[in-house]
Amino acid sequence: MTNGTNLDPWYYNYAQRTGGLAASEVRALFAVASRPEVVSLAGGMPYVSALPEDLVVGAMSRVMREQGPVALQYGSGQGVPLLREQILDVMALEGISGSADDVVVTTGSQHALELMAKIFLDPGDVVIAEGPSYVTALVIFKSYQAEVDQVPMDEHGLIPGALREHISRLRSAGRTIKLLYTVPTFHNPAGVTLSWERRLEVLEICRENGILVLEDNPYGLLYFGERPPVAMRSIETEGVVYLGTFSKTLAPGFRLGWALAPHAIREKLILANEAAVLSPSSFTQLVVSQYLSDADWKSQIGTFRGVYRERKEAMLSALQENLPSLSWTNPNGGFYVWLTLPDRLDSKAMLPRAVKELVAYTPGTAFYADGNGANNIRLSFCYPTPEQIRIGIKRLATVVNGELDLLDTFEGTGSLTPVHQEQSILPPTDMR
Amino acid sequence: MTNGTNLDPWYYNYAQRTGGLAASEVRALFAVASRPEVVSLAGGMPYVSALPEDLVVGAMSRVMREQGPVALQYGSGQGVPLLREQILDVMALEGISGSADDVVVTTGSQHALELMAKIFLDPGDVVIAEGPSYVTALVIFKSYQAEVDQVPMDEHGLIPGALREHISRLRSAGRTIKLLYTVPTFHNPAGVTLSWERRLEVLEICRENGILVLEDNPYGLLYFGERPPVAMRSIETEGVVYLGTFSKTLAPGFRLGWALAPHAIREKLILANEAAVLSPSSFTQLVVSQYLSDADWKSQIGTFRGVYRERKEAMLSALQENLPSLSWTNPNGGFYVWLTLPDRLDSKAMLPRAVKELVAYTPGTAFYADGNGANNIRLSFCYPTPEQIRIGIKRLATVVNGELDLLDTFEGTGSLTPVHQEQSILPPTDMR
Repeated sequence: MTNGTNLDPWYYNYAQRTGGLAASEVRALFAVASRPEVVSLAGGMPYVSALPEDLVVGAMSRVMREQGPVALQYGSGQGVPLLREQILDVMALEGISGSADDVVVTTGSQHALELMAKIFLDPGDVVIAEGPSYVTALVIFKSYQAEVDQVPMDEHGLIPGALREHISRLRSAGRTIKLLYTVPTFHNPAGVTLSWERRLEVLEICRENGILVLEDNPYGLLYFGERPPVAMRSIETEGVVYLGTFSKTLAPGFRLGWALAPHAIREKLILANEAAVLSPSSFTQLVVSQYLSDADWKSQIGTFRGVYRERKEAMLSALQENLPSLSWTNPNGGFYVWLTLPDRLDSKAMLPRAVKELVAYTPGTAFYADGNGANNIRLSFCYPTPEQIRIGIKRLATVVNGELDLLDTFEGTGSLTPVHQEQSILPPTDMR
Repeated sequence: MTNGTNLDPWYYNYAQRTGGLAASEVRALFAVASRPEVVSLAGGMPYVSALPEDLVVGAMSRVMREQGPVALQYGSGQGVPLLREQILDVMALEGISGSADDVVVTTGSQHALELMAKIFLDPGDVVIAEGPSYVTALVIFKSYQAEVDQVPMDEHGLIPGALREHISRLRSAGRTIKLLYTVPTFHNPAGVTLSWERRLEVLEICRENGILVLEDNPYGLLYFGERPPVAMRSIETEGVVYLGTFSKTLAPGFRLGWALAPHAIREKLILANEAAVLSPSSFTQLVVSQYLSDADWKSQIGTFRGVYRERKEAMLSALQENLPSLSWTNPNGGFYVWLTLPDRLDSKAMLPRAVKELVAYTPGTAFYADGNGANNIRLSFCYPTPEQIRIGIKRLATVVNGELDLLDTFEGTGSLTPVHQEQSILPPTDMR
């Protein structure tokens, strides 16, 4: 009954935008990868077990004891004032200063993204994004009938020259560019970080062209060595809407994120938030606020950093050991490694065989609006243990080598001599 | 800075739909009415203090002890399976049978409403609704550039003959009618209930005309005497999307509601939900699920019924005592009484004087898309105590009588002789 298009009596009643709502490849994978015997390198689930439950239980009990009726009640569409003040402290760690009055608490930063799309995007508008880009951002933009134009990256992030070219090409074609959507730090899925010089340059390009920057920064505090450059919002105030979240530094189960926006945009975000959900959950807002008041949250973020650093190192060692002929990015933080397969391999076509070998990943095509990324794979090191990661990469190597053997046999070609790049350059998608 | 339209550098970048996002009158009132000395008969806040906090703390602690990592993690876009099963038990109390597979958990039923609007409404589409209708539903429909056509009610709810007329007029004008949005039971703001016979008739009219019914039922279990007629969804399966919520029978602070939808629509709702928030909060879903497993939730709903019945009676006695010349509805459940002032009075213009007298209410115009309702007032009896209600209505009488005296003085007319209707008929908005 799931493909019952013809059986749906309301088929001709949906809005035009609903045509853009399709199940993402990542979504289908969650089902497959949830079998316990599969090592999943696919999802982006934080390792919440690194958070001591006592801290959460303590915060909850105190909230119910001291503010029960407030926690159980509707709140404001903007969010709890104390929590918005505390969010300023979190953002200060990335160089941002702002007013709690310009913070809007949302149901995960995902919902801030949805609200930004709702208030800015008319059908036919263009959103510029990195290529590759966060899957569910692509889904949202498409759901508001906007087109996503993806600009290539290299190991220093989005390439400013390419951004200029894309803007000028789109302008010549008479297109309206509404937003630059970017994950500048520890990019999902590419694992790269926009350099300081490029942050300045990208902001300058957007300022010149009247393009609002939507800076999505879920991973910035999860660095493994040196701190990354400060947030773009710390450099530019009026031209940037900044999105943050507690999903990665605390836990996604609370569904709490935020937007920091120029005053007039913040006002629209509040109205859109009220229309959509009346108010974010008072209960989870107060629990998180209490946690931030009572717990040593900065050292908890340090714990997460250590967990993810160890897992990333396990993944890179395993790749070096098992798939030395391939190339991959070396992230200095965050959750993801971006792997490039030989051109002959198709990561999506290979996935069923991988699942048969009990390892799952996300095919690169999921991160492009245009079918690009066929020989890329996003590998997540956030959730599995180092030991599982080693097993998973070993299984992946079996699959990749098996596919290559198969191709060699059928094509009768000689052995493959791929170039191994220690610091990989992402596929030049712009030049295909 | 709040009216800084000319100062907003992004003013010309917003989507067209954003023009429809304006601060509701109810929203502005929340600020005014939150001063402690004001008796607020304005908001629709449930009296959450009637919920024993121990029940919530117990459920929370058990969830964290037994399912901590699940509660803190992302979940599915459809919601926790056990909770969806339990939601079937809740809906069974209103005559509904369905499959947990067709339930989608949302961030309050408000978000289900937003998602329905997003997947069904193109600019220029028409949503038929009762006149008056729930404020934030009007805001949502407008935010998707749909037009709301409001059909009058009487003491038995929406008038089927008027519905037929409106449909035929809209069809003649070539308009596309996408939804009938209705709160059939203990209507917000009118306080009336659609009779059993009319439920059948309205469903038949919608079936004939290919109009999907969006049945919003937050109050159905909060009846004061006899049970209301069963839900429209219990009569018709393929033509109704049903919205329910835990906000009134448990607490709004969890932000948990749901949609029960025909299979194909349910599939779109899940995709739209995932795009908007990835998943509803695992944490609040598991807490509510645990509460439903462990607590005597049916008897807790009985407690709420008793609280609200007493408050409604206090309000009606106070109206009878202090404003006997006016008319009002006599709700058999829910949160609201709809008061009709003499034609000469304007409830919105009168509001500042009321707030000066330390009583707040919602002017009737808030519930119409077209400026109607000027001599109506929505009075909420859900949150204030019976004693506060008596004080509030006494203050309201001072204001109303003061306004009438003033008009008499200035107009030099004789005394007013309004008709008092025990069972009020709502203003015939269709015939003005």
